[in-house]
Amino acid sequence: MNITLKEIAELTSGELEGDAAKTITGAAGLADAVETDVSFLGNPKYGAQAAASKAGCLLLPKSAKGIAGVSANRIYVEDAQWAFAQVLDIIEKELLKPVPPAIDQRTQIHHEARLSPNLTIGPFTVIDRRAIIGEGTVIGPQCFIGFNSRIGKNCRIYPQVTIRENVVLGDRCVVHSGTVIGADGFGFSTDRKTGAHRKIPQIGKVVIEDDVEIGSNVSIDRATVGVTKIGAGTKIDNLVQIAHNVHVGRNCLIVSQVGIAGSTKVGDQVILGGQVGVVGHVNIGDGAILTAQTGVMSDIEPKSVMFGSPARPHREAMKLQALINKLPEIYEAVKSFRGKQKPEPEGDHAKTA
Amino acid sequence: MNITLKEIAELTSGELEGDAAKTITGAAGLADAVETDVSFLGNPKYGAQAAASKAGCLLLPKSAKGIAGVSANRIYVEDAQWAFAQVLDIIEKELLKPVPPAIDQRTQIHHEARLSPNLTIGPFTVIDRRAIIGEGTVIGPQCFIGFNSRIGKNCRIYPQVTIRENVVLGDRCVVHSGTVIGADGFGFSTDRKTGAHRKIPQIGKVVIEDDVEIGSNVSIDRATVGVTKIGAGTKIDNLVQIAHNVHVGRNCLIVSQVGIAGSTKVGDQVILGGQVGVVGHVNIGDGAILTAQTGVMSDIEPKSVMFGSPARPHREAMKLQALINKLPEIYEAVKSFRGKQKPEPEGDHAKTA
Amino acid sequence: MNITLKEIAELTSGELEGDAAKTITGAAGLADAVETDVSFLGNPKYGAQAAASKAGCLLLPKSAKGIAGVSANRIYVEDAQWAFAQVLDIIEKELLKPVPPAIDQRTQIHHEARLSPNLTIGPFTVIDRRAIIGEGTVIGPQCFIGFNSRIGKNCRIYPQVTIRENVVLGDRCVVHSGTVIGADGFGFSTDRKTGAHRKIPQIGKVVIEDDVEIGSNVSIDRATVGVTKIGAGTKIDNLVQIAHNVHVGRNCLIVSQVGIAGSTKVGDQVILGGQVGVVGHVNIGDGAILTAQTGVMSDIEPKSVMFGSPARPHREAMKLQALINKLPEIYEAVKSFRGKQKPEPEGDHAKTA
Repeated sequence: MNITLKEIAELTSGELEGDAAKTITGAAGLADAVETDVSFLGNPKYGAQAAASKAGCLLLPKSAKGIAGVSANRIYVEDAQWAFAQVLDIIEKELLKPVPPAIDQRTQIHHEARLSPNLTIGPFTVIDRRAIIGEGTVIGPQCFIGFNSRIGKNCRIYPQVTIRENVVLGDRCVVHSGTVIGADGFGFSTDRKTGAHRKIPQIGKVVIEDDVEIGSNVSIDRATVGVTKIGAGTKIDNLVQIAHNVHVGRNCLIVSQVGIAGSTKVGDQVILGGQVGVVGHVNIGDGAILTAQTGVMSDIEPKSVMFGSPARPHREAMKLQALINKLPEIYEAVKSFRGKQKPEPEGDHAKTA
Repeated sequence: MNITLKEIAELTSGELEGDAAKTITGAAGLADAVETDVSFLGNPKYGAQAAASKAGCLLLPKSAKGIAGVSANRIYVEDAQWAFAQVLDIIEKELLKPVPPAIDQRTQIHHEARLSPNLTIGPFTVIDRRAIIGEGTVIGPQCFIGFNSRIGKNCRIYPQVTIRENVVLGDRCVVHSGTVIGADGFGFSTDRKTGAHRKIPQIGKVVIEDDVEIGSNVSIDRATVGVTKIGAGTKIDNLVQIAHNVHVGRNCLIVSQVGIAGSTKVGDQVILGGQVGVVGHVNIGDGAILTAQTGVMSDIEPKSVMFGSPARPHREAMKLQALINKLPEIYEAVKSFRGKQKPEPEGDHAKTA
Repeated sequence: MNITLKEIAELTSGELEGDAAKTITGAAGLADAVETDVSFLGNPKYGAQAAASKAGCLLLPKSAKGIAGVSANRIYVEDAQWAFAQVLDIIEKELLKPVPPAIDQRTQIHHEARLSPNLTIGPFTVIDRRAIIGEGTVIGPQCFIGFNSRIGKNCRIYPQVTIRENVVLGDRCVVHSGTVIGADGFGFSTDRKTGAHRKIPQIGKVVIEDDVEIGSNVSIDRATVGVTKIGAGTKIDNLVQIAHNVHVGRNCLIVSQVGIAGSTKVGDQVILGGQVGVVGHVNIGDGAILTAQTGVMSDIEPKSVMFGSPARPHREAMKLQALINKLPEIYEAVKSFRGKQKPEPEGDHAKTA
């Protein structure tokens, strides 16, 4: 990359302050940036780091106008993080020069599969019978796309992804390596006499809507009957478990190692923090935020912020944690109270009565 | 599927009430079912949903006989969920027409491997030296079966499974994609002088008994010496960790994201809820139930039901959670008590004494 | 294996007591060992098991000299576990006879990749453009090594590992099956107007230093910009999540199912127990120990031992857990206190005043 501040300001629709002709060749975080890098201040709490940064130019929110002590070369933008992302986009395109679409010779593509134009399919990938792959999609090496599954347009499937039968992916979806979509849900019927767990066939589907990104080593199970669904624009981090018949809404953020049990419904714009666990058959309302490690055992109201296992409203949970810290003090007081009581035991009263 | 109520009643050994000649073409949950679907009421708490269901026929437990307000077409059975599973089984067989057994040309099968008749082995799969595969087993594409491992009869190994050396699988086992069986246990000996962690060779085995099902992206490590063992009939959900030398009993249910640390022994018919963690070198008694997110640091009695981290008996844990909710009230009372005390401090008593 | 006690003593620099000519053919844990096995006592708390063991020879710490009731054939060593590991090493070499280095015909190796001598590369593995593989390294079947990545000398990459572009592995690293190194970090910029999460390109690297071992189904994400780093000698168990821009120090032990969120810095010789979760942008000091399931939301002091979610110093957390057990007693006392108060309500005082 070789870009002037003037060009960055244009790219990000920003307002430039400083040396418009200065050339930037890289991008970095505040702490790592050098004179030829652009960096950004996304959160005012990192103001001290911004002041200490050696970045040749800073992308700043408009609210930071006139901020003292940081680089003289500044570009004020609506959203500094997003402006930075736009610069990264340029660097990425240079780093990873796109290769022309091509289907490797060493794939196994069933003759009843339907391939659109402009596909890239890597070596040792298997496309099963009646699978349909949309235009412009890139499927990495060593992937498996099962019977009757349909991948939309301009998707990106990284190496070693398994997509089983009857799975639907929308357009512009990204699936990272090691992820398994459409494995059987965990459904067994226990024979009360023998204790044996008999398999309930899992014959439902998985539907992933447009613009969903799914991290690495994620497991999304097919429905028993009906559908397991991930709404458009939802982003799922690594090592997440989505059980059979779960419905996740639109634009959710599901952080790493979250587990959602069967048939639970998650609303739109929900944020599930790392390692959150949600039991089956409950509803998480739109806009709810469950902070990391929260354990949910019942319905969650829209827009609520929850913490803890079992989950409580965040403020309440924090207050209870503070009170738990006071338990030694509380217990001492209780002992002291009981000590006070002892000189006047019930028996004494009886005597005096 | 095209099946009459009379035929479903015969299939499920049920007692039919209603229109025996009515034809059913699908199966669905209570909420999604339409007039041509069969559905089921597995749990009386979904009675309202059953009443609202548009299903053309309901499978009901015998205990629900005479239930009002639900479909007039009813089949009373011993176990409604299992009856429903039997219908799903028919649909599944139609959906996924079995392909005749065949070994793909693009596998790598060592000439010292021993293959039984009637095998299916998918493309790009590797079967290493001295591996043995039992009759009727289906191994998907892109799998790895290591040196000296033995897979039983009629197993189903989905794509992209790694089974390392010296692993034994019984008959009728199912292993879902992304799962790794027999990777090295996490064993290191720390040099006290340098702090370096030196690898302890992990030369033990893994033995998986008959009828075990293992979800996707599961990790089951080989023993240091001896064996890591999963008992017959046990079912393991996705993203579960089974460490070296763990012994799991028969007919357990291990829900998603559970972690069991090294050398722990889990009894028979144990249920470990989602995200449960169990430390190493402890015993979980037969029939114990650990609810979701429970953290176990010591032995668990047979048939006990535990919750929380650290684990406590479920009733006790629930009671403590209720008391934690009362902490604000408790703390107010303690402050009030101390306020009361202040007018009569110890010193005053001393004076009056 | 066929080795005399004299030879084991020499191998482990131990002091032999007993029958020097006795032959040992295997190794086992205390409970499983038979007359022809060597076993070891690593921890004095297993003294009773050592006494009951049928092992033909015991490796014992020097501190156990003169211990009564255990096998008469003893070898006293500096570190009994490590001595045992040295015996296992011999057995392992016999079990898994090394095959001469060879590159399978059915790999896809880009002509711009740089391969050193003495490599083993398994079938169906893909080595992408400009990847560099160091001498003596073994890469299993069905692996993917991405553009411009560099694998050091004498590494061992097990089957079905994905290493994306611009990843660096040092020498003698071990990576187990199903692991994904270098997938995109979980970085999105949310459009405040639409709620859409827009992808922030993840163009950073991953650097894994020498002697790191990484378990199965682990996810280590690439940095947004800069580097995600794992320090030399650190050992990572299965199903662990390392987010973008995390820096882990040297000689850490990261147990199964741990999750470390973005940009967090973990010091040297840190131990993270199973299922520990650490939020982003915090520092874990050198030598800190976080016990299993701990949830960390802020910086952790060096050498501290923490437990619980939220994390508290271990002693304090244990004390608070004991006090939580006393909540029924505390609540009863509080009720009794309030009961006592009632006969003398404020109003009564007012009257008497």
